[in-house]
Amino acid sequence: MKKPSIQVLLTGNELMAGDIVDSNSAMIAQQLNEYGLSIARKVTLGDDLAVLVNELKHMASQTDILIVNGGLGPTVDDLTALALSKAMATELAEHPEALSQLSTWCQQRGSELNQANLKQALLPKGSTVIKNHSGSAPGFLCQLLGCQVYCTPGVPHELETMLAKEILPQISQQYSLQADKQTIKMQVFGLGEAKLQQMIDDNLSHWPQDIELGFRAGTPLLEVKLTSKTKIAQSSLDHWQQRLISLLSAHYVATINDKPLELAEHVLSLLQQQNLTITTAESCTGGLIASKLTEISGSSQSFEAGFVTYSNNMKTAMISVPEELLIEHGAVSEPVALAMAEGALTKAKADMVIAVTGIAGPSGGSAEKPNGTVWLAWGTANNVQTQCLLLPFKRKYFQHYVANIALDLIRRQLIQSKETPNYVKERAFKPIKRN
Amino acid sequence: MKKPSIQVLLTGNELMAGDIVDSNSAMIAQQLNEYGLSIARKVTLGDDLAVLVNELKHMASQTDILIVNGGLGPTVDDLTALALSKAMATELAEHPEALSQLSTWCQQRGSELNQANLKQALLPKGSTVIKNHSGSAPGFLCQLLGCQVYCTPGVPHELETMLAKEILPQISQQYSLQADKQTIKMQVFGLGEAKLQQMIDDNLSHWPQDIELGFRAGTPLLEVKLTSKTKIAQSSLDHWQQRLISLLSAHYVATINDKPLELAEHVLSLLQQQNLTITTAESCTGGLIASKLTEISGSSQSFEAGFVTYSNNMKTAMISVPEELLIEHGAVSEPVALAMAEGALTKAKADMVIAVTGIAGPSGGSAEKPNGTVWLAWGTANNVQTQCLLLPFKRKYFQHYVANIALDLIRRQLIQSKETPNYVKERAFKPIKRN
Repeated sequence: MKKPSIQVLLTGNELMAGDIVDSNSAMIAQQLNEYGLSIARKVTLGDDLAVLVNELKHMASQTDILIVNGGLGPTVDDLTALALSKAMATELAEHPEALSQLSTWCQQRGSELNQANLKQALLPKGSTVIKNHSGSAPGFLCQLLGCQVYCTPGVPHELETMLAKEILPQISQQYSLQADKQTIKMQVFGLGEAKLQQMIDDNLSHWPQDIELGFRAGTPLLEVKLTSKTKIAQSSLDHWQQRLISLLSAHYVATINDKPLELAEHVLSLLQQQNLTITTAESCTGGLIASKLTEISGSSQSFEAGFVTYSNNMKTAMISVPEELLIEHGAVSEPVALAMAEGALTKAKADMVIAVTGIAGPSGGSAEKPNGTVWLAWGTANNVQTQCLLLPFKRKYFQHYVANIALDLIRRQLIQSKETPNYVKERAFKPIKRN
Repeated sequence: MKKPSIQVLLTGNELMAGDIVDSNSAMIAQQLNEYGLSIARKVTLGDDLAVLVNELKHMASQTDILIVNGGLGPTVDDLTALALSKAMATELAEHPEALSQLSTWCQQRGSELNQANLKQALLPKGSTVIKNHSGSAPGFLCQLLGCQVYCTPGVPHELETMLAKEILPQISQQYSLQADKQTIKMQVFGLGEAKLQQMIDDNLSHWPQDIELGFRAGTPLLEVKLTSKTKIAQSSLDHWQQRLISLLSAHYVATINDKPLELAEHVLSLLQQQNLTITTAESCTGGLIASKLTEISGSSQSFEAGFVTYSNNMKTAMISVPEELLIEHGAVSEPVALAMAEGALTKAKADMVIAVTGIAGPSGGSAEKPNGTVWLAWGTANNVQTQCLLLPFKRKYFQHYVANIALDLIRRQLIQSKETPNYVKERAFKPIKRN
């Protein structure tokens, strides 16, 4: 049986005025998605009767199923039932089942049915009541121009339950639906959407049409989603995932089940697997790397101490950076980054270290070391690597960028990648040496 | 002149799939509202060319102004320009101004224009480019069936700037609209919207009807907006602001001009005025307080060092917390918080200190010190104050809450407030002493 086409009509002045953000339609989409259904079109309108009537007719003429959300309440600006009765050219009538649901609801709360509640029992003639498991307003189903119109409450938790327990079971039974979409989500670091699309175009030009490729830009991890749209595609989903992973190489971070993970979570789980600890010595990021690590529950297993050595004096006092290095090379230099790494490793008795020293701006830069210059030193006591990058961004963005790159460099060392990351290729910088 | 009718078309598979919630249209509504304009109708569609073309024609035939949001990016599913060219029955052509904006954008980031970026310079013939102040994708304006179609980027901060700096000035000039309201914005810490509304109802019951009171919940600062809706109200705006400030007492942080300031900015500017330096000793916040301070440009003037002492050993090694205190009282205790504060003050040679030690959870709590217990110690060498709070929230939220409270306690000491903050009244906690 063919899948039904579905549209959603959201109503409410508060949605138009920007007073609230609509999260209901995302919830509807997610629930439909479990049955392989999707929303083709959403319209949002204020509480204006004539406009609602017009739109209901227009939408009903275009689609098999219309889900109307909002406007079932007891107040004068709740217009859904009235607008539908007008669109259907029928009357509103007191619906006995709706009335009984409302009475039960009021009884359970020890209150009396009032005039305003009674309004909620007035539905277009011929409607079927849909049970509201967690609120007073009954939902209802009616027919308009051959379209099934499901009217649902605006309160999110009432909508959620009504969809899951009443509406989706009805639709899936009517159309004999089963979940047939399969999805794989991966996280990628160090490649933007544009760059990745380019790589795929250049290297995987035979990408199958029935595996949809979706990107969701995140900070700092890009989420890549593969969705098989047919039964045949499902069997080749793994194959194309593997080809994509090969292409991504060390830019590929992980395949995830559900919600996105933080880069620090991936680093901490590698550290825990390898039974290693890490410490941080931060100048330009001022504690942000330590903060990203300790934001993760269980980080104390791998992280004992971090040093925020913002001034030169404190680099010497806290992690024994020799004064003469600071004088000779300046705080933003390879020798100082190395000395910070070594000092922090020793003081914290840790296995691995991240040290960063740079110029976050907007002031402090010079011709030889412009704003955005940063030296990173990272690794183990036996293998500290260094890299200078130029990241000429706004202060806050620069700090997060540096912190994320630092975590990614540790991740790459933990998975023993020898590859040069894309951001190093693009951003490597060689400050001019002073005499 | 009559006000224009406005509709909004939001595009993107991610909006239809429920992967993201649309907050852009609320932002558009709020910006329009400042000029007395509103959105009459919103439609949301996935990335399907034929469907987009149809909808564009349908909407353009109904309204004076159509704001299209999303679909300006470099990937194949970004279809706005193509769909408009089809709807207009014209060609896509490389737009020199768009290309020049894209080149400048790439140059500033030290990257090359690639094939994908070039796509972003292809606009329907006859379009006018709209400057994107904070992203790569140029916006554009074109005419369809007598309707002005403004095409805007989906990235929220890019959209926000483009609306405020480019599109709304154009529309308001064309239709001779004025932002006829006068507005005062204040920042408040430690009071929620509901509590503040209650305080106003109880104490300022004669609040004038023509001064609108608006709240914008922020983290961590609540923004309170007074808007005079009439000329008469403008003259009494200052008076009512002063009454509100008196009522708020030390919960009032500052009156701001334009964009909200961070709490750390207020603290740093007080420190600079008083020529004082600060240091941090952080356990449960793991560097977050240092990070919030150093995120602010110019923080190096007042901040030299921060200690992230996550383990007990490192509290002793880095800031000389006596081992016996840790053994006798545990890490989350008043004596340890005090010793952390004193140790950090000495090591960093700073004038002021924030020290925090607590249980961020979700594990680690006990009956006597449940998850969310935190000891704070703050002040100057001569005057270190302490407080225990119970903030039983999720880990990340707990960490930010503690960091913000710590900054606010320092702010209060700097303005010499003797008042007990609302959050201390509500959250003060006394752990049961061990024997």
